[in-house]
Amino acid sequence: MGRLAFIGLGLYDLRDISIGALDYLKRASFVFMEDYTSVLPGFNILKLQEKIGKNIILLSRKDLEDDFGRKLWDSSKRGDIALICIGDPFIATTHITLRLEAIKRNLEVIVYPSPSIINGVTASTGLHIYKLSRPVTLTFIEEKYGYYPLTAYYVLQENLQRGLHTLFLLDIRKDKNRFMTVNEAIGVLLKLEEKVNEGVIDVDKTIGIGVARSTAPDEKVFAGYLEELLDYDFGLPPHVLIIPGLLHETEKEALNILCRIDKKKLDCWNKRVQELLSKMR
Amino acid sequence: MGRLAFIGLGLYDLRDISIGALDYLKRASFVFMEDYTSVLPGFNILKLQEKIGKNIILLSRKDLEDDFGRKLWDSSKRGDIALICIGDPFIATTHITLRLEAIKRNLEVIVYPSPSIINGVTASTGLHIYKLSRPVTLTFIEEKYGYYPLTAYYVLQENLQRGLHTLFLLDIRKDKNRFMTVNEAIGVLLKLEEKVNEGVIDVDKTIGIGVARSTAPDEKVFAGYLEELLDYDFGLPPHVLIIPGLLHETEKEALNILCRIDKKKLDCWNKRVQELLSKMR
Repeated sequence: MGRLAFIGLGLYDLRDISIGALDYLKRASFVFMEDYTSVLPGFNILKLQEKIGKNIILLSRKDLEDDFGRKLWDSSKRGDIALICIGDPFIATTHITLRLEAIKRNLEVIVYPSPSIINGVTASTGLHIYKLSRPVTLTFIEEKYGYYPLTAYYVLQENLQRGLHTLFLLDIRKDKNRFMTVNEAIGVLLKLEEKVNEGVIDVDKTIGIGVARSTAPDEKVFAGYLEELLDYDFGLPPHVLIIPGLLHETEKEALNILCRIDKKKLDCWNKRVQELLSKMR
Repeated sequence: MGRLAFIGLGLYDLRDISIGALDYLKRASFVFMEDYTSVLPGFNILKLQEKIGKNIILLSRKDLEDDFGRKLWDSSKRGDIALICIGDPFIATTHITLRLEAIKRNLEVIVYPSPSIINGVTASTGLHIYKLSRPVTLTFIEEKYGYYPLTAYYVLQENLQRGLHTLFLLDIRKDKNRFMTVNEAIGVLLKLEEKVNEGVIDVDKTIGIGVARSTAPDEKVFAGYLEELLDYDFGLPPHVLIIPGLLHETEKEALNILCRIDKKKLDCWNKRVQELLSKMR
């Protein structure tokens, strides 16, 4: 029985792959990759194949979820294998399930951790990790099925009630080549507000921070009222949106410098969050 | 004016340093490192110096915080510089302040992100990032100064009220060679319970998950009631402690397999959290 290594590619091109992971890939018998859970700007699979001196076998959602990783287990009988993922491997719950399956099959599991969007966001915005509450995925509304991602609305509400920041991970439908933009995300949030109507989101009072291609050389960050972000061109995916909670003095300073937002707007926002806090408690 | 790169070393030895970061370090004129905010198991500075072909200048808390990074700014006039950090650079708020100072001094800032303990913990335990609320630092009690880290208690309470997981980052006093262990952390939490007395922590009912040297080859993870963790030998630092919230079925499965805890205990814990939820709401 071979070993299975989970290998993260981080946030940009081949910049973030670790030297430990690269060593393993060079020695592995079979290298797989899944790229349907995320997007890696600047990534070129041919460059990575050349670097590790072997082919990379792309796996689909069907391979990993419907077929429970059968292709991995078949290959593991013939040597060490690797599963390459975008970002950090264990941000996606699919990979936890695969890992447990591997252990049940007596494979030795090795993890090569790598930076995730959580690390990216603290770098791009200067927000404190100590104020970042649980992240939430914002999916596309499916009006014809009556589907609205209400969880995202309630998570934001709960986080704001505690004065904490909310990171929205934006929907990716690789099969349809659809990647939710910050602009679309705001559209979804406004529709959720219309539906739930508890006064959590206000297009001209709520502050949002949009981050595109976090930490990449062409990273774009911009903060402002949601209406200001609605038309802002963030460029290519992946995008994330943050709605901050109560901001610390150094966070305001960072947002002012890194995300080009006037401190007065942030002071107004802090007052508003404080009002929400006292009203909701 | 040169450039300043923030470079993270990740969680173990030289395994996690990225190929992008290594390239930059080889080309940089001056390389600094701070190692007072964290501990990197298996790390040897000589090995890194050899790999990058130059000396690394160690900086103290005094250099970076009291002297506001003066040594960095002096060197930046003579070429590209790097500041190496353990874990991910922007988990520590000190580095955000330095980054803003660099921008004010017209330095170009580059970030090489790397895995942090947040990534480590999801890998070591299988807990879902979507359930992980804000982390909190647990510091040593200073009885002679009447100092108790009450924030940690209240953060845990708030997180449990929402059914979310709490990650405790444990105190490091490198100057005194003191690194809080999981066992000590539980001692601190029990003292906080004694003091605040709101029934959040119970030595024989509260579940804790201890993780030592997350993702390293000699990683140790163990979960159980706090009283079971009190005497468990986790070995060398760094350690972290997690008190979970409501556990999803796949999280229970993961904790059972990765942290060797009986699922019945986790079912009891889920019931207890649900009772707390209904009582506290």
